[in-house]
Amino acid sequence: MNGSRMIGEVRIVGAGLLGASVGLGLRALGVDVIVHDSSPSNLSLAIDYGAGRAARDTDNPRLIVVAVPPDVTARVVADELAAFPDALVTDVASVKVTVLAGVRAAGADVDRYIGSHPLAGRERGGPISARGDLFLGRPWVITPHDGMPAAQVGVIEDLVLDLGAVPVIMTAEQHDSSVALVSHVPQVIASLLARRLIGGTESALSLSGQGLRDTTRIASSDPELWVQILGANAASVAEVLRDLRADLDQTIEVLAAPEVPGARRGLAELLAGGNRGVARIPGKHGQDRRFNQIIVMVDDKPGELARLLTEIGDIGVNVEDLRLEHSPGQQIGLAEIAVLPEAESGLVADLEARGWRIAQVGQ
Amino acid sequence: MNGSRMIGEVRIVGAGLLGASVGLGLRALGVDVIVHDSSPSNLSLAIDYGAGRAARDTDNPRLIVVAVPPDVTARVVADELAAFPDALVTDVASVKVTVLAGVRAAGADVDRYIGSHPLAGRERGGPISARGDLFLGRPWVITPHDGMPAAQVGVIEDLVLDLGAVPVIMTAEQHDSSVALVSHVPQVIASLLARRLIGGTESALSLSGQGLRDTTRIASSDPELWVQILGANAASVAEVLRDLRADLDQTIEVLAAPEVPGARRGLAELLAGGNRGVARIPGKHGQDRRFNQIIVMVDDKPGELARLLTEIGDIGVNVEDLRLEHSPGQQIGLAEIAVLPEAESGLVADLEARGWRIAQVGQ
Repeated sequence: MNGSRMIGEVRIVGAGLLGASVGLGLRALGVDVIVHDSSPSNLSLAIDYGAGRAARDTDNPRLIVVAVPPDVTARVVADELAAFPDALVTDVASVKVTVLAGVRAAGADVDRYIGSHPLAGRERGGPISARGDLFLGRPWVITPHDGMPAAQVGVIEDLVLDLGAVPVIMTAEQHDSSVALVSHVPQVIASLLARRLIGGTESALSLSGQGLRDTTRIASSDPELWVQILGANAASVAEVLRDLRADLDQTIEVLAAPEVPGARRGLAELLAGGNRGVARIPGKHGQDRRFNQIIVMVDDKPGELARLLTEIGDIGVNVEDLRLEHSPGQQIGLAEIAVLPEAESGLVADLEARGWRIAQVGQ
Repeated sequence: MNGSRMIGEVRIVGAGLLGASVGLGLRALGVDVIVHDSSPSNLSLAIDYGAGRAARDTDNPRLIVVAVPPDVTARVVADELAAFPDALVTDVASVKVTVLAGVRAAGADVDRYIGSHPLAGRERGGPISARGDLFLGRPWVITPHDGMPAAQVGVIEDLVLDLGAVPVIMTAEQHDSSVALVSHVPQVIASLLARRLIGGTESALSLSGQGLRDTTRIASSDPELWVQILGANAASVAEVLRDLRADLDQTIEVLAAPEVPGARRGLAELLAGGNRGVARIPGKHGQDRRFNQIIVMVDDKPGELARLLTEIGDIGVNVEDLRLEHSPGQQIGLAEIAVLPEAESGLVADLEARGWRIAQVGQ
């Protein structure tokens, strides 16, 4: 069965999380996927996991996906362009301007290169964390450059659509300033915030709550990878950080003299600006915007959640996502259930008719 | 049935999220709870929700819990001390030094006042979000001041233990510098980070991912409340922010010239500091440290999750928390199941014997 838009072989260079996930996703569609990695153990792991097959001398890939660390991406792209003179090459690095400049500087056939960047990832890295559905519903930026044949863009779009992702066309410059704002600066800030905790007392840390956990979660990211990313997008990141520093200066000034007339108003405006900013993030926070959410109260006794899910199955509704929120020893748990929007109102009515208590209904 | 450590009536002033949750928790233990609120509609809502009864002229509470906004806490505490000359009074405001100073400045009988602060909350406020188990397993700081009778502390400890929380004894000063680090500074930083999004393009925002959502989630908090909190803890918050600004200055400097010798090493050290800081937060991020986690692969067809949960019930293990991670249309979901540590290994063995695939086992 071949249900893919892609035709011909696809060669993936770099069998880490992203490369192996691309391989798994394409293999599931019947595409002939070749995997290559400079690490033999990574390569055999990725092949064992079903991400593709080893390279052969007769390989003639139409498309090559370079999924190696940002620092070496331009060089590997140039090598692949030279080794496979009929292939189109893309990469998945999270910076685009410096990679394109590097490919150009290497004197490679840049007309056969289009940078791209899937906005997807997991905390765990490596091929064993790879999933064929990693890119599902996620944006995947494609960054064509001046003068390249338009048909090339279509090939990358086919790849993106095959993997269930959403193609977003931007210039490399637009991409880099966008990810500076929504990804690279949050990473820097989370790291600097988490760094403050080194000096905290044990008892201070014992008061940690979900807010601290959320704001610092990504501070556990790999410093080596992030030095590469930030170094390659330094100007865009620094620009946002300088604006943020101006606000931070103002905050510190207000807190140095909070009783000065206007000080509290200034602070309130900074915080209200945060409200406005966070409201601009698409989708509801922490939950999938494709689904509606219903909250069902569940007695905390064995079998109750299973009974609820069995009855939802009887009603004929598929549970898209589920989160049980309860505390041990308490009598009531809250099952947060995500369903397709069109299924919501019928499900609520049917569950209530069966005696379930719906705590809150919302999107 | 009276299963509480607390004896006698408890009066709660302020029927918001925290006050009503204290009421619900104590009512569940059979305690006679009096609720008071300056807003008649809030009061009747809280009474309807079962948080307690209305005040009577004959009330003679042993303990009064003041749960009003930080700005008015000291005044309300002083009023209650004067109105009920036999009662011990505590408050639940998230700042402690300024409240104690305010109570003293009001000339109140400060020996009958002990500040406290439960580290608990939900995104939704008001009595309708209240839950009797809101404080379960959460730290609840008690801040005795010099010269007060030791027996008074025991009364507050009884309250905390009755509500299932964990008493933590600190001075008001230790409390305020601790929450500056683990709560107030993260709030400021999340707001300043989110504020940067106001200027972002639509297409930049369309690239938002979970990292941005997590780092900015608390930026949707109420500015009015936070101006009160930050204003009342200004010195401690400013001190941490100044240290953070020094790191931010260094980061901006490095990014202005990333190719200078040593620049990347400096950046790597800042990011590695973030790794070390986040590792100091107790418990695994985003999940409850009291439980072990197992991940079971579940076919994405109706009834499969119910079958898994039914079988776990048959095995005799209680599911403490559950998260289903899957993508619509894909063949496999991952059910992340939290169980008591002592139940983990037996459950894994039994599930595997029944043919379930366990994707990963960990704490």
